[in-house]
Amino acid sequence: MATQFDPASGTRDLLAAEVERRERAFGVIRAVFTRYGFEPLQTPAFERLDVLLGKYGEDADKLVFKILRRGEHEASGEADLALRYDHTVPLARVAAAYGSRLPSPYKRYALGPVWRADRPGRDRYREFVQCDLDTLGSVSPMADAEVLCAHYDALAELGIGEFQVHLNSRRVLTGLLDAFGVPAALGPGALITLDKLDKLSPGDVAAELADRGLAPDRAAELVDAIAGPGAADRIRDVLKQNAEGSAGLDEVDQVLSLVAPQVPRGRITFTPRMVRGLSYYTGPIWELTAPGVAGSLGGGGRYDHLIEQLGGPDVPATGTSLGIERILSLLPGGEAVRLQRLDVAVTVMHGRFVGQCFGLAAAARSAGLRASVYLGSSGKLSRQLKWASDQGARWCLIYGSAEDEAGTVTVRDMDSGEQAAVPLAEVGSYLARAAESR
Amino acid sequence: MATQFDPASGTRDLLAAEVERRERAFGVIRAVFTRYGFEPLQTPAFERLDVLLGKYGEDADKLVFKILRRGEHEASGEADLALRYDHTVPLARVAAAYGSRLPSPYKRYALGPVWRADRPGRDRYREFVQCDLDTLGSVSPMADAEVLCAHYDALAELGIGEFQVHLNSRRVLTGLLDAFGVPAALGPGALITLDKLDKLSPGDVAAELADRGLAPDRAAELVDAIAGPGAADRIRDVLKQNAEGSAGLDEVDQVLSLVAPQVPRGRITFTPRMVRGLSYYTGPIWELTAPGVAGSLGGGGRYDHLIEQLGGPDVPATGTSLGIERILSLLPGGEAVRLQRLDVAVTVMHGRFVGQCFGLAAAARSAGLRASVYLGSSGKLSRQLKWASDQGARWCLIYGSAEDEAGTVTVRDMDSGEQAAVPLAEVGSYLARAAESR
Repeated sequence: MATQFDPASGTRDLLAAEVERRERAFGVIRAVFTRYGFEPLQTPAFERLDVLLGKYGEDADKLVFKILRRGEHEASGEADLALRYDHTVPLARVAAAYGSRLPSPYKRYALGPVWRADRPGRDRYREFVQCDLDTLGSVSPMADAEVLCAHYDALAELGIGEFQVHLNSRRVLTGLLDAFGVPAALGPGALITLDKLDKLSPGDVAAELADRGLAPDRAAELVDAIAGPGAADRIRDVLKQNAEGSAGLDEVDQVLSLVAPQVPRGRITFTPRMVRGLSYYTGPIWELTAPGVAGSLGGGGRYDHLIEQLGGPDVPATGTSLGIERILSLLPGGEAVRLQRLDVAVTVMHGRFVGQCFGLAAAARSAGLRASVYLGSSGKLSRQLKWASDQGARWCLIYGSAEDEAGTVTVRDMDSGEQAAVPLAEVGSYLARAAESR
Repeated sequence: MATQFDPASGTRDLLAAEVERRERAFGVIRAVFTRYGFEPLQTPAFERLDVLLGKYGEDADKLVFKILRRGEHEASGEADLALRYDHTVPLARVAAAYGSRLPSPYKRYALGPVWRADRPGRDRYREFVQCDLDTLGSVSPMADAEVLCAHYDALAELGIGEFQVHLNSRRVLTGLLDAFGVPAALGPGALITLDKLDKLSPGDVAAELADRGLAPDRAAELVDAIAGPGAADRIRDVLKQNAEGSAGLDEVDQVLSLVAPQVPRGRITFTPRMVRGLSYYTGPIWELTAPGVAGSLGGGGRYDHLIEQLGGPDVPATGTSLGIERILSLLPGGEAVRLQRLDVAVTVMHGRFVGQCFGLAAAARSAGLRASVYLGSSGKLSRQLKWASDQGARWCLIYGSAEDEAGTVTVRDMDSGEQAAVPLAEVGSYLARAAESR
């Protein structure tokens, strides 16, 4: 039940276990991207309204969080800023702002939250992290293959199971429509319908194509050719005589050949019916899926004119977007994992000894361990040991009257329950050795 | 000059060198906090408007970025959400939402952007990172000393020069006002004036106190006692007979004694005239400053009732806030540092060899190195070597017709210019060895 203390609708508070789980995954992804020579770019959370609006159509504009003008202008009820909707529009702005001061090609990744006023639901948030990898300024198929390999490596290193790469080319699709006599004007609509082949039956798709104005028999032939097993070989055959289609097949084959040493055979296939919804792609396109997971784990492709359409310079571009929230949901659970906050928990048995206890925690930290004194008000050892255990501490230090007299500290191994009396001055080195030998 | 491609007023695009400089510093800070057993908390960028407004007074409310309602409600011109103004209000909300499901005490840090519609200026941004460290649920002076030590360690490990810790207690100040006969009603105002002793002359401060209603001679005595050298000893003397003041001195002495093994003598001093502007502090307070740096590097103190005032539960609390943007500005420059994007740059001398070249980059990455092929369109070696040099690459790999015939790769050391012919299959291990020996 929602309470007044819940975060705003569609947003989440991330407590420690979840933050650590996410940051660990982000660290793996950053390391992979860095290894490929991609560099980070961070843009502000909000942009001027005119930068954001009108870039992705009216439906997207409705999902933009707009920020009210401030001061005397607040009463106008008008907005002048808006929260980032994706990482691509800011990339186009940065490319325009920096021009030749950016490296060429500009290989950048963006990993950070975006905000969309979608209806919140299970695993659908209004604040969620998006992770994009793009190369601006290269027409080479190596640039396409590179982002694809980096995407693949990131999923592989995160330990996502048996995911699959589906590869196609927009030019293959254009050639295909041409070969089946689909009028150019019907092309975009036909692609939207073909994109539904993973949800609808081939018959339904053919019917929808006919509704769009295709001759019913051509529609059925097209769907027969593109759907089902053996499609890749059939399509290769069909496109032999089609210039655009052949060029698309060359793109597909180039990418397949470039990624071959990296991506195992059988993990990547030419999938003619894979369309990628968005209309801005111009060359190779790909999508990553995992068995049993609805939707994709991300995907991308070449989009040679989009940066200019978004207000940036006219540069060729290729990129991939990782479906990061879905990927995170596939990784081992966060809250379920017991959080180890401390290596060393220091009990405080008496107010007289706070100085020594505080110093013991400092000594443990100097040995590179995570350590804290007990900050509660109970003087009972059992209560403090429970705290130490809740913190996941490996050792608990006890310093009471007996220890004070003997000049020692009792070091309790929280797993075995064994205790050792260690001279006060040697606790740091004792713990460092103990940590090394575990 | 501002252009249409600049980020919104008061915000910044952070390119690679700056991102890396900042993330390096954040990494140091997180490591220190973790070593103290503090855990991360991430709250959403925006909160419901009622959670944020009215918490810090009207002036602060004016600086809140408000988000327009969406859909059919957009036309109302009303806001229902607002961007996070600080990390303390969200902490109070989380403490209320999670209650006893949080660890007790709850030791958390928050490191992330906040947004304030301040007038932008040099080093003053509307989107800036705030870094807070707080302990909820402990009345122990060890909790105060712990956040102070963690703040100290973070600055020390970042390599900030000769910074100073100024320690005081709100109870010392209360006792002091009492000892000098300042009526309770004038107390808060008097503290605001005393806080100006680092900007105004003692005479001006005394005059302002008199304006506030203090007897001019008492005002002059108070300023004489609190300002200038020897103040700490004088104040200790004055407060001997004052219960509240003595209790404050005990707090100061407890913290001084607890931090003594960690914070070198001379780096921390009892500074009676240090007030900390905000009125919510209830116990020990501190501020960190560096010579030659205007303002502070952060500070904090005990604030036992604030969480409740902000809508959270009634828990004792203590915390510190690092002036992170100022600290970042003191660290070695970002853009000035030459960015090393790659360890290995692979030239592409001919379209025939793209497969081999792409594979060479993959081999270098398998050896743990950052590697990329040349993605540009020039076939000239000199141009590609310049690209390799711009990327900061340590080695450049060349694979042309001669190498193809010999089955080798030319590995060029970019520092010495020396070249070696390495068999194709051995490039990965060759580079791994070379990287190790550097």
